[in-house]
Amino acid sequence: MSQKTVLIVYAHQSPGSFNAAVRNVTVKALEEQGCRVIMSDLYAMNFRANATYDDIIGDWKNPELFQYGEETMHAWKEGRLSEDIVAEQNKIKEADLVIFQFPLYWFSVPAIMKGWMDRVLTQGFAFSLEKMYNNGVFKDKKAMLSFSTGAMPTMFRPDGINGDINVTLWPLQNGILHFCGFQVLAPQIFWCPVHSPHVARTAMLEGWQARLKGLFAERPLTFAPCEVTHSWHF
Amino acid sequence: MSQKTVLIVYAHQSPGSFNAAVRNVTVKALEEQGCRVIMSDLYAMNFRANATYDDIIGDWKNPELFQYGEETMHAWKEGRLSEDIVAEQNKIKEADLVIFQFPLYWFSVPAIMKGWMDRVLTQGFAFSLEKMYNNGVFKDKKAMLSFSTGAMPTMFRPDGINGDINVTLWPLQNGILHFCGFQVLAPQIFWCPVHSPHVARTAMLEGWQARLKGLFAERPLTFAPCEVTHSWHF
Repeated sequence: MSQKTVLIVYAHQSPGSFNAAVRNVTVKALEEQGCRVIMSDLYAMNFRANATYDDIIGDWKNPELFQYGEETMHAWKEGRLSEDIVAEQNKIKEADLVIFQFPLYWFSVPAIMKGWMDRVLTQGFAFSLEKMYNNGVFKDKKAMLSFSTGAMPTMFRPDGINGDINVTLWPLQNGILHFCGFQVLAPQIFWCPVHSPHVARTAMLEGWQARLKGLFAERPLTFAPCEVTHSWHF
Repeated sequence: MSQKTVLIVYAHQSPGSFNAAVRNVTVKALEEQGCRVIMSDLYAMNFRANATYDDIIGDWKNPELFQYGEETMHAWKEGRLSEDIVAEQNKIKEADLVIFQFPLYWFSVPAIMKGWMDRVLTQGFAFSLEKMYNNGVFKDKKAMLSFSTGAMPTMFRPDGINGDINVTLWPLQNGILHFCGFQVLAPQIFWCPVHSPHVARTAMLEGWQARLKGLFAERPLTFAPCEVTHSWHF
């Protein structure tokens, strides 16, 4: 088996956090398996979340109307994307697996991580009108969400106050990851570590460590059974 | 009828965009109805999306472990939130209706707008363990999403390639807006304006203008019928 490369896209402000502990477990366990681990520590990098004119070097295709998606697609084709975006794209190219590690903020990724998705997953690089979903650009790569939440599992049951966790995760897992072709592994959810005793937090970390041993052998999630078309038609 | 105040939280980089045209229609139509319109033009403000230490003035409650939600809750109570957050919170306080105007980025709001939600909707200000959903802090206010997308409606049908648009919007509409108590009005969706001829775009704007006349009389959406509890129990 050839060496696997894993990219961890990590979003927590504090090295003392539970998310930092999870990240450390991930790095150690994967390196012990012989994986190469690369990291994007978004807050430490002060990663810019906002999609702005600065993402493009040189002139716009349409100076009258700045359309971020269109302009960045052209910039990608012509090698005119900003350096910080290109660096992240190169990490994805190298990765066999991308793990997003974060605390759930408002039923989604923190804005800094949404900014990574908005800015790095450029049309052309991460998808095209012909290449998406099962036929997506990253169909030979895996990706997964690993996150903590202040909620309890009962709140995210289908009959819970927040509704089914799978519905909450749909735009991320199907709409972003699977859209780009990634084989999406089941999310790793750390329920309410902040309100859990130390022994329970340790057990959560051990559970994750154990899961990591078999992670590459896991079957990915399946999404819409209706995926019959492979391209958009305007 | 007393004068209504409407806050438009707006996220597009370009004054030449379709979203800018929608915003302009909104302002004009609402002002003609006698409303007062206030605006947060996020890119123009260079609104910071990232949730960082800088959001808190003074010392942290827990210097060992920075937990954004906890720390900002305390900072809110003690009047120690950063100035830009307080300014946005004051706008919400004044508003009877909040309209989020944006292009859909990766099945959600652009990161700059997610950052507004992450940073401005502080625990204590926007929700508490006792005040959420039907009993939420903003239960006497309305909110809605108004957005453009490059997709066609067929892609977002329940049997479409992206799945049901209501599922994609669930974390935003139920998870953020309704969670804070807002009465959520049906989303205004502008399908594929970029690939539509001028006459179709004009018709979309006219349709929205017509809807605006009766907006305050609309019945809000309903969400989980299971909303039987009004507080979380740890």
